Amino acid sequence: MTRVVLLGATGSVGQSALAAIEAGGFELVGIAAGRDVSGLAAIAERFRPGMTVLADPAGGAALASRLGPLGLASDAGPAAMEALAAMEADRVVVAIPGFAALRPTLAAVDAGRIICLANKECLVAAGDVVMPRARAAGATVLPVDSEHNAIFQVFENDALGAIRRIVLTASGGPFRTWTHEAMARARAKDALKHPNWSMGAKITVDSATMMNKGLEVIEAHHLFPVGIERIGVVVHPQSIVHGMVEYADGSVLAHMSNPSMVTPVAHCLHYPDRGGAPVSPLDLVATSPLTFEAPDETRFPALRLAREALAAGGHATNILNAANEVAVTAFLNDRIGFLDISRVVSDTLECLAHRGGASATVDDVESTDREARDVAERLTYACSAA
Amino acid sequence: MTRVVLLGATGSVGQSALAAIEAGGFELVGIAAGRDVSGLAAIAERFRPGMTVLADPAGGAALASRLGPLGLASDAGPAAMEALAAMEADRVVVAIPGFAALRPTLAAVDAGRIICLANKECLVAAGDVVMPRARAAGATVLPVDSEHNAIFQVFENDALGAIRRIVLTASGGPFRTWTHEAMARARAKDALKHPNWSMGAKITVDSATMMNKGLEVIEAHHLFPVGIERIGVVVHPQSIVHGMVEYADGSVLAHMSNPSMVTPVAHCLHYPDRGGAPVSPLDLVATSPLTFEAPDETRFPALRLAREALAAGGHATNILNAANEVAVTAFLNDRIGFLDISRVVSDTLECLAHRGGASATVDDVESTDREARDVAERLTYACSAA
Repeated sequence: MTRVVLLGATGSVGQSALAAIEAGGFELVGIAAGRDVSGLAAIAERFRPGMTVLADPAGGAALASRLGPLGLASDAGPAAMEALAAMEADRVVVAIPGFAALRPTLAAVDAGRIICLANKECLVAAGDVVMPRARAAGATVLPVDSEHNAIFQVFENDALGAIRRIVLTASGGPFRTWTHEAMARARAKDALKHPNWSMGAKITVDSATMMNKGLEVIEAHHLFPVGIERIGVVVHPQSIVHGMVEYADGSVLAHMSNPSMVTPVAHCLHYPDRGGAPVSPLDLVATSPLTFEAPDETRFPALRLAREALAAGGHATNILNAANEVAVTAFLNDRIGFLDISRVVSDTLECLAHRGGASATVDDVESTDREARDVAERLTYACSAA
Repeated sequence: MTRVVLLGATGSVGQSALAAIEAGGFELVGIAAGRDVSGLAAIAERFRPGMTVLADPAGGAALASRLGPLGLASDAGPAAMEALAAMEADRVVVAIPGFAALRPTLAAVDAGRIICLANKECLVAAGDVVMPRARAAGATVLPVDSEHNAIFQVFENDALGAIRRIVLTASGGPFRTWTHEAMARARAKDALKHPNWSMGAKITVDSATMMNKGLEVIEAHHLFPVGIERIGVVVHPQSIVHGMVEYADGSVLAHMSNPSMVTPVAHCLHYPDRGGAPVSPLDLVATSPLTFEAPDETRFPALRLAREALAAGGHATNILNAANEVAVTAFLNDRIGFLDISRVVSDTLECLAHRGGASATVDDVESTDREARDVAERLTYACSAA
């Protein structure tokens, strides 16, 4: 029986993963979450994993007092989280949002695990550290992010020379048709109305700025060795086609599905086999028409910023990611406006442009991340003062 | 260097195959055509194959007199055609239209060749003979027909149990939006205006009646062992998505391309490698929107007739195919109306419904084919007399 560790069990992707794990008859051997004691305890009570870990050490006692009487082991803190990520298992699902996924992901990588990676930030910030370590340790990174999972499903490794382009689709987010002026006045509640996906707040705002697609271009660069200039983006408001691979013979292989994370997480849990998933079949007649537009990098500069950071190399994508996390939080807290998000990211990149070289170690990555967050944080206060 | 034999070189698919052969740097070792001496001779002069064959014995002398002085060997007649199909080669492309492809295809099958099959009629009429013989001889049948090639490209053989459905797309043809009354008055010139594909007259009329899609459902049944009830059809007027496979995890893998036969024939020539093809890349933004509709089996009864014949088994699909070839010819010659095509097919099937059993041999298939053609022929005269 396939033994699964699930990091980030209480979040949106975590819920999809639990549905896929239950439907697939997998054994959940370990679960973890950030701070949500009662959510995590409820999952532990239902699935009875061998180990339950809270990242936040402050909640460890509360978790233990709830699970201990049920005979369920628990632990808390970053070291426990990393130990869980590296425990004996057939699949480690990383569904932790943001940069916080980096250390646990590396623990699973170094243990040579098969990682179902739903987190994009750790590849954006530290892909140059994560991927070589995965190769060295014999770990496998399977992409759960829907666009990358889509591309992965139709990517022919043996035909690399015949791949003309890979294409990520973008819904365009809630502001796809908004004017620049309207976006300038947009509030968090507007940005959180995603047309197709129900996701966490951070990624939903990233969809609104299209930074999400920018991060995904960087993620795709680490997952698929086709070259930066062969990673395309097309806006597809219906979110039915998730990704495509264009071949030199004119064939474009595409992955379509209803917008549900259950499908890609089930795909990665079963891979290289195919299993079922508790999702409704796609009804193309009902979803017709499918439309496609070129992305507008003038109204959505985040996509361009991400491409520029990727082309610049070195620390740039790490800085981009850190600044974006800070700016999105500030926007969600109503401290800065919507258009300020890309401005803060852009200004942070400029402020730190003098930092050359690349991050060879996690310590490098984390110190650059902290530095970028400090700069971005100050910039958000400068924005809110303006 | 891959040695290719091309049967049906002068037709529409033959031209696409020549483009793919030239672009792929393959060696064309043998070519054949039905009756077009000057078209075939021109190809022979350009590609200088080791053998050039005309199916029609009456044209053999003319062909020889044109090619002999150039030092190019030629021959004519059915036996020469079968010898060519079985000659030493790495790929045999069968681009002969209609039932006439059966004997040459079987010659290639019995020689254990890798066959790039663009002809659908021989599987429709005799799939129960062709496929077992292919398995016995170790021959491989690669589908060139665009919908089947599309499905083949995204069909995971190891995941048969997780395939929910395969789906063929249909353009809906030139009469997709016509009323029954307008179709009753349609003439050959109307039916020959296909919206997306430039093809031979027979298949273009088959697209107008949607019998083409019916024949393809039968063809798909022989190529993909998913069960009749798992073969779906969806109308997609833009002909960009050619075929899809729906998996139990909610994934739908689709093949898209511009409507050109060069792509699927190149795919089969290179398979399992991927090569290039002289086609323009798909521009999804320019082709947007892509629309999908359920097929209308009331206005287009041919699709239903084909499914019924497939379900009936035995000789029924052979009879369907023969009657359809006769009826289409009669329609192209202005002897019967457009709606009479399906009526002739339906009536022929009813007339011969007493014929039980299955065709175990080619002689069986051919005698049933002749009988069905006789009946259909008489029915077309009955129609024109009415």
